[in-house]
Amino acid sequence: MEHQNSNPIRCIVKLGGAAITFKNELETIDEENLMLVSSQLRQTLMSASSACPRVVGMDWSKRPGLSEHPSVDSNFGDQPVVDSKSFVVVHGAGSFGHFQASKSGVQKGGLGKPIVKAGFVATRISVTSLNLEVVRALAREGIPSIGMSPFSCGWSTCQRNMAEAEVSMVIKAVDAGFIPVLHGDAVLDSSQECTILSGDVIVRYLAAKLKPEYVVFLTDVNGVYDRPPTDPEAKLLREIAVREDGSWCVLKPASLRTSIPEFTVASHDTTGGMVTKISEAAMIAILGIDVYIVKVGTDHSLQALDGSLRGKIPEDWLGTAIRRIDDPKAD
Amino acid sequence: MEHQNSNPIRCIVKLGGAAITFKNELETIDEENLMLVSSQLRQTLMSASSACPRVVGMDWSKRPGLSEHPSVDSNFGDQPVVDSKSFVVVHGAGSFGHFQASKSGVQKGGLGKPIVKAGFVATRISVTSLNLEVVRALAREGIPSIGMSPFSCGWSTCQRNMAEAEVSMVIKAVDAGFIPVLHGDAVLDSSQECTILSGDVIVRYLAAKLKPEYVVFLTDVNGVYDRPPTDPEAKLLREIAVREDGSWCVLKPASLRTSIPEFTVASHDTTGGMVTKISEAAMIAILGIDVYIVKVGTDHSLQALDGSLRGKIPEDWLGTAIRRIDDPKAD
Repeated sequence: MEHQNSNPIRCIVKLGGAAITFKNELETIDEENLMLVSSQLRQTLMSASSACPRVVGMDWSKRPGLSEHPSVDSNFGDQPVVDSKSFVVVHGAGSFGHFQASKSGVQKGGLGKPIVKAGFVATRISVTSLNLEVVRALAREGIPSIGMSPFSCGWSTCQRNMAEAEVSMVIKAVDAGFIPVLHGDAVLDSSQECTILSGDVIVRYLAAKLKPEYVVFLTDVNGVYDRPPTDPEAKLLREIAVREDGSWCVLKPASLRTSIPEFTVASHDTTGGMVTKISEAAMIAILGIDVYIVKVGTDHSLQALDGSLRGKIPEDWLGTAIRRIDDPKAD
Repeated sequence: MEHQNSNPIRCIVKLGGAAITFKNELETIDEENLMLVSSQLRQTLMSASSACPRVVGMDWSKRPGLSEHPSVDSNFGDQPVVDSKSFVVVHGAGSFGHFQASKSGVQKGGLGKPIVKAGFVATRISVTSLNLEVVRALAREGIPSIGMSPFSCGWSTCQRNMAEAEVSMVIKAVDAGFIPVLHGDAVLDSSQECTILSGDVIVRYLAAKLKPEYVVFLTDVNGVYDRPPTDPEAKLLREIAVREDGSWCVLKPASLRTSIPEFTVASHDTTGGMVTKISEAAMIAILGIDVYIVKVGTDHSLQALDGSLRGKIPEDWLGTAIRRIDDPKAD
């Protein structure tokens, strides 16, 4: 079912696992980045409705190490809340879930194996723990966030690809003024019993179903580079154009235009997984939805989130924009 | 849609909020009771398949105050796992969610009010925190538990009553060998925008849809009494018969048979909410599904969970059994 645009989605934001967790420290959140993301999302959402800088926290639960009694503003009724319209958040797993999934081979399927079944349970515990913390961080910034697990939504895969899935609960949550927060999850797979449904695949699926105006991927690097970003020679790809047939080319920097063919055949490893990233993003951009890949918690990510890149992209913006070009001669 | 009995549900277990949390201490789990419940569920599930007492833990996440690295059995593949067939767990909120919901009036609806919207978010954070802890406690006992939030399942209410809801994701989880763990939740309501969907209502709805063999309510008292259980004169109702027209009568103790009319008109308060409890249970029993209300973590609850009460109820069993009688002259 297509979204009837009763409350059109403005943006789908992907919080990369590497952006909000320390990838090499088991189940450790990058609290600073998560707070920066939450704050920027609040700024973005509030700019649409009110300039009041006051934050009305929506996490009234206890927090380890903090006061027993969560404070709830007694004068709540008079305070504005952020305009929650039109954002959907999806986050990756980072150092949550990865250990459990890889230890047990959930991705490869086979629930009949005790370790796979146990790993499925363990993976879901880990990723839902992270989801809860992301929801809480957003709620503390006054964002009416609502955790929604793909497994609970009844989503599943077939041969590891997203099967046709009901998105009406996501739409209903948005229509009610909430910000759904989904996540990469362990799910059932009709061909191999189970697998991992990644946050990136969820973003692509939701983009196709919900037709947001734009999609933002928040990562731990500035964007997509022509080689692993740790390489001192690595160059940031600033603008990528996607043709209607799904092929893509680099528009900026112009110096890289000639090396396009290299990307289309490069293996994932040699580019730090970034070719995959472009291909995934291109599948969204081909729908006419602008995609921005940008470093979390920067001025650049704020510009991407608030939609101000939708026209011309400023010269000083750091990040990768992937957009459809309708004239195949434009490159 | 009716369950096709590909993997019939043996039992729906309700973990009462008062049974697994300290009701008067904000967001405080009764760890001992929760562990007892988990252990009894493991015993019940394992008795169906294997007598191996070894517990294969499925929570591989960090726990506050414990070692950084969760231990995962390296010899996992050789170990039996519990037979997970046919149980569904639903838990209440207890001291989770109640504060947030009552402070904001989520139950009364009206998402347009800032405090209701914030309270909705805060309530979901609190109840999903509890859900995560229940799932983890079960997983540590080797039960392949899977948290499923009613909101994420897309469930909603109309005039506070459960609206027609898709249960296929619950059935799929059971068919895949998992134990779904649902909970009372804040949900959208088509007549008043939002409300609280209680665990008891979920149990009743799932019982009608999934047709389990029996339903067990685990509480913090021995069962249903004829007056508040704190009253020293309170008598435990041991067997209640439900007629096909929905009316019910006390079979045991026989001395209470004559006082039945009092229950049908008694207000909730004067009986500590227990008349409501019987009426709810009677609506399940009328479907031919035995209902047991029993104190958590006792030998009596173990008997109820493992289904051994389904024939004649032992004289020394402490609890309340509510069952349909097909002969209206039996009382």
